[in-house]
Amino acid sequence: MLIVMKQLATADQIAAVVAAIESRGCTARPIPGGERVSIGVLNNKGPVDVSFFSGLPGVKDAIPVTRPYKLVGREFKPEDTVVDVGGVPIGNGHLTLIAGPCAIESEQQALTIARLVRKAGAGIFRGGAFKPRTSPYSFQGLGEEGLKILTRVREETGMPVVTEVIDEESFDLVEAHADMIQIGTRNMQNFSLLRRAGKAKKPVMLKRGMSATIDEWLMAAEYILEGGNAQVVLCERGVRTFVRHSRNTLDLSAVPYVRNESHLPVIVDPSHAVGRRDLVIPMSRAAIAGNAHGLMVEVHHEPEKALSDGAQSLYPKQFEILCEQIRAIFHTVTAGA
Amino acid sequence: MLIVMKQLATADQIAAVVAAIESRGCTARPIPGGERVSIGVLNNKGPVDVSFFSGLPGVKDAIPVTRPYKLVGREFKPEDTVVDVGGVPIGNGHLTLIAGPCAIESEQQALTIARLVRKAGAGIFRGGAFKPRTSPYSFQGLGEEGLKILTRVREETGMPVVTEVIDEESFDLVEAHADMIQIGTRNMQNFSLLRRAGKAKKPVMLKRGMSATIDEWLMAAEYILEGGNAQVVLCERGVRTFVRHSRNTLDLSAVPYVRNESHLPVIVDPSHAVGRRDLVIPMSRAAIAGNAHGLMVEVHHEPEKALSDGAQSLYPKQFEILCEQIRAIFHTVTAGA
Amino acid sequence: MLIVMKQLATADQIAAVVAAIESRGCTARPIPGGERVSIGVLNNKGPVDVSFFSGLPGVKDAIPVTRPYKLVGREFKPEDTVVDVGGVPIGNGHLTLIAGPCAIESEQQALTIARLVRKAGAGIFRGGAFKPRTSPYSFQGLGEEGLKILTRVREETGMPVVTEVIDEESFDLVEAHADMIQIGTRNMQNFSLLRRAGKAKKPVMLKRGMSATIDEWLMAAEYILEGGNAQVVLCERGVRTFVRHSRNTLDLSAVPYVRNESHLPVIVDPSHAVGRRDLVIPMSRAAIAGNAHGLMVEVHHEPEKALSDGAQSLYPKQFEILCEQIRAIFHTVTAGA
Amino acid sequence: MLIVMKQLATADQIAAVVAAIESRGCTARPIPGGERVSIGVLNNKGPVDVSFFSGLPGVKDAIPVTRPYKLVGREFKPEDTVVDVGGVPIGNGHLTLIAGPCAIESEQQALTIARLVRKAGAGIFRGGAFKPRTSPYSFQGLGEEGLKILTRVREETGMPVVTEVIDEESFDLVEAHADMIQIGTRNMQNFSLLRRAGKAKKPVMLKRGMSATIDEWLMAAEYILEGGNAQVVLCERGVRTFVRHSRNTLDLSAVPYVRNESHLPVIVDPSHAVGRRDLVIPMSRAAIAGNAHGLMVEVHHEPEKALSDGAQSLYPKQFEILCEQIRAIFHTVTAGA
Repeated sequence: MLIVMKQLATADQIAAVVAAIESRGCTARPIPGGERVSIGVLNNKGPVDVSFFSGLPGVKDAIPVTRPYKLVGREFKPEDTVVDVGGVPIGNGHLTLIAGPCAIESEQQALTIARLVRKAGAGIFRGGAFKPRTSPYSFQGLGEEGLKILTRVREETGMPVVTEVIDEESFDLVEAHADMIQIGTRNMQNFSLLRRAGKAKKPVMLKRGMSATIDEWLMAAEYILEGGNAQVVLCERGVRTFVRHSRNTLDLSAVPYVRNESHLPVIVDPSHAVGRRDLVIPMSRAAIAGNAHGLMVEVHHEPEKALSDGAQSLYPKQFEILCEQIRAIFHTVTAGA
Repeated sequence: MLIVMKQLATADQIAAVVAAIESRGCTARPIPGGERVSIGVLNNKGPVDVSFFSGLPGVKDAIPVTRPYKLVGREFKPEDTVVDVGGVPIGNGHLTLIAGPCAIESEQQALTIARLVRKAGAGIFRGGAFKPRTSPYSFQGLGEEGLKILTRVREETGMPVVTEVIDEESFDLVEAHADMIQIGTRNMQNFSLLRRAGKAKKPVMLKRGMSATIDEWLMAAEYILEGGNAQVVLCERGVRTFVRHSRNTLDLSAVPYVRNESHLPVIVDPSHAVGRRDLVIPMSRAAIAGNAHGLMVEVHHEPEKALSDGAQSLYPKQFEILCEQIRAIFHTVTAGA
Repeated sequence: MLIVMKQLATADQIAAVVAAIESRGCTARPIPGGERVSIGVLNNKGPVDVSFFSGLPGVKDAIPVTRPYKLVGREFKPEDTVVDVGGVPIGNGHLTLIAGPCAIESEQQALTIARLVRKAGAGIFRGGAFKPRTSPYSFQGLGEEGLKILTRVREETGMPVVTEVIDEESFDLVEAHADMIQIGTRNMQNFSLLRRAGKAKKPVMLKRGMSATIDEWLMAAEYILEGGNAQVVLCERGVRTFVRHSRNTLDLSAVPYVRNESHLPVIVDPSHAVGRRDLVIPMSRAAIAGNAHGLMVEVHHEPEKALSDGAQSLYPKQFEILCEQIRAIFHTVTAGA
Repeated sequence: MLIVMKQLATADQIAAVVAAIESRGCTARPIPGGERVSIGVLNNKGPVDVSFFSGLPGVKDAIPVTRPYKLVGREFKPEDTVVDVGGVPIGNGHLTLIAGPCAIESEQQALTIARLVRKAGAGIFRGGAFKPRTSPYSFQGLGEEGLKILTRVREETGMPVVTEVIDEESFDLVEAHADMIQIGTRNMQNFSLLRRAGKAKKPVMLKRGMSATIDEWLMAAEYILEGGNAQVVLCERGVRTFVRHSRNTLDLSAVPYVRNESHLPVIVDPSHAVGRRDLVIPMSRAAIAGNAHGLMVEVHHEPEKALSDGAQSLYPKQFEILCEQIRAIFHTVTAGA
């Protein structure tokens, strides 16, 4: 951290800031400049909040300099992490496609879609059993019944499955049935859930919060790694901005940025980001061209009858064509790397 | 909902949309215009998702027309709700000031601050026992020990207390000790927690999510009311925008807007919104001038030693002067109403 | 500026950064830390762009430390600037109310409204003659005819007038008729217009751009001061965020923040910020409670017939009541300062 | 437009809204629903502002239904527009790469870079002569001298050139030297400049404003088409959001969305969007994978000595590799279309 003093800060104020820094267990290094003094805060072992110093007399600004995360950072672990989802790898040179309906509606629906997406090239099946819904009056998912259907899908098709967990109460149940546990965007800073995920024996997919900075997202992952679970996949799914033409704004530059900062794999969910199937297709291609390790895409064989998010679900035929394009683009990107 | 068809939509496409509307249990009312047909969706009992129709062939837009909430809406209950917090009312003509430290650090700290803020005019004491923190390495609060200190504060000073609940596991404990249960910004869409709050016997303060629209915020409150608990206070605390000079952007226009839409009381937390005490003071006044029913403000007798958010905590003397100004402004506003 | 090197940066990379800093005419001051080296950039006379250094090998971050503005800054001129608008002062202890219609529609309309707002307490009349409109098909204002009506208003009522200039071509004309020249939000970074305003003999009101940071806003004012015109009033008018319940999000915390950073007066335009008259009234009060030096409010005697922005225009009676409340709040705020 | 009345709106209020609609030259079509009345506004020839009706008694909402633009819309002209820039086409099946330095610094610099980018595959050369700068103290470009260098580049290399115009005063000069005239993000709603561009004999590249919605962007283009110039290229360059890891947030979903709404070609400027060369490369690929008609990329042979934006400029060798990848991806995308 760097403390920038006001031009007219007195020697006493500077001394008080130095004392405050040292009382927090850090080293203070004053840097006299032409117009003002700055003070470097060094050797901080634990976290040092900006708010410890920014309100002290004579202080103009307190500027964080180093990143707050450790275990998830590439400076801590330089080589790429590969996450194993029921035998399917994500990360470091692998291209992984996850596909399926927004919500599990019935065994027949799930199996029909699973067979179609597997044939097109998906490696992992997705489907929601517990659905976090903005309205208490909306369809909330089949719950445990949905989890059992997912187990049937794995048995029938051989595909591992990913599904969302929405609270600690149902965590054991989800962990028992899923090959990868999804933590959704609204729970990205549900710290109790993150701590529980740190104890899980299954990989975790952590979606970016709707207005999370990269630091906040990586700190959420830090909770899971700190708890003992190093199998974490990050998933960019759009952020909330003033833009109205798509449901959220897909922040694709987050993908190469995060890959630079962290060793964890990063995939993209274009379906929730844009909310319209005619936009999902080009954004899927863009994600892979932009260095994502994979995609999670919603596919439904009868989207006009879907119980949720039908407008963003691809038809199976669209998904099949998309998979071909995705593979060609991935080849172009990795050949050029 | 209004479905807007493309100019070149065919009669078959229009008929298919009408059929889709009716298959969802609604009435379709086509409205021929000069250039295109629109179709009104009427008599929808349950929720009708935009995504049911927006992806159908020939559809240009699906536009929600009515509000998604019911129990929290003023059309459902025209008169203002007054929430009773351990004998202190919030809403409808009352001015309620909540003050205290960000986190409970010790009994002595809590009691010292409680006495100071009560003397200045605060009606309710605040203090965090369970702290949701971005970093797993930051101070996480005293937990149950903090709750017991809050009980001591109530016994000693007579002030009711509000404190945050961060998960279902500790909900019973918090409910047993608090006079009002706070659900924080990161948990605004933790639907399991909201459902639990709907069963609580204590009032709930629901903070607005960092990037929540008013509809989403009111729908979160709807979960609580739908569960059986009608004692809900809404708290605006700033939203996330591109702005960097304050921690978040205090969206004060939300206060009169929500008061128009809902019968629930609305207060403002300027401390977390702006993050700097020199901005907290004018924004506190602005909140009351802008029609808020009250404030929740952080006060600390030794902010430079605080374990969290010291830079935004007012000195007790500042809070005392602020309270006087607040009362004068509230008088001006309500006299003019 | 502070250059933060990567943990693994080599001595050669550090030396190259030092050389690059010195080649730009600055002094480099390396600061060895426990984990990495940082390098302070001192004594920079002119502007030093982050981009000069942020792409060099071994560099993790380049962090600006000092503010980019000079003439508008309070470190340059500690005492408040008072701007004189045709005899009416803005700033430093004065409360200034500017009111009038969005657009001048006719002499009769302008005079009617001017008399009403003067009686209620407005000191300056506003009205648009040249209107920047999103659509080329919308009413674009009366142009020169509108300016002549403004001159009539001043003659009849004695009120100075403020009106917007939208290009260099019409600048002379606007300057000749107006007592204060408004530069609108869409032109905040029209640097040619700002340079022309720097040569004007009349005060300039500079509205904040719809997505401008405070630094950008103050740098836009810097253009005017640097050109020779020190009579600048800043006007906060809402910024663009994800929020949809009001047209823009009024960023009131900008007011005390800017007053701290700059000596220039700051007023607020709640009408364009929120776009609905039932929200304009509480936000007007909030602005004054939040330390603004004044307001610019739209008032129309027949808003339902207005040629633009009728929904946000106050009825004269509403404005009259508002003025009384505003004066009481201003008294409370300044008495407590 | 659809006017939604409050549940308790009276028959008189409804009649008054109908009368207001008809007084604006439109047809009112009331739509009785189960809970409330809505009123469709039909046959509006000119623009109908939301604000005409949203403040009337009994009105809950006024919702725009149709798009405000005409000439730029695909409903007006279904087939793709191809813009001819000095013999190089943009749009409809063509892939167009524009490259060059941020600013023209000298003839030698410009020629060196032009030869390198042409060899790599760029079709059009870019370079700023008039630079809009946030600070009045930053390098403002070589002005007319820079334009003459651009003319030399065209003579020497055969490449057409694009450069920015920043005001009406210098428009003739820029029009005389450039093959395509760029209107920058800060001038997207400089309506006088747009009107002048509508009279130009050269194509215009219109960058999206930093916080412009798609409607506003297309309405800005509408100004140019309405003035008589149909040769307009749209350029997405990132929008301003809360995100801090990249300079702006590249909104790639705007590309397929705009291509659906409008017949005009759409290209992407990843350099200004992300501001760091390690992010420019993946975002360039993503733009083409996401359906852009082309790219505008900054390239500099000595970025560490550049007078502006060095950190985002690609090295020529990077650009060469990128061009190969771009062509492969474009082939994949168009083969799959």
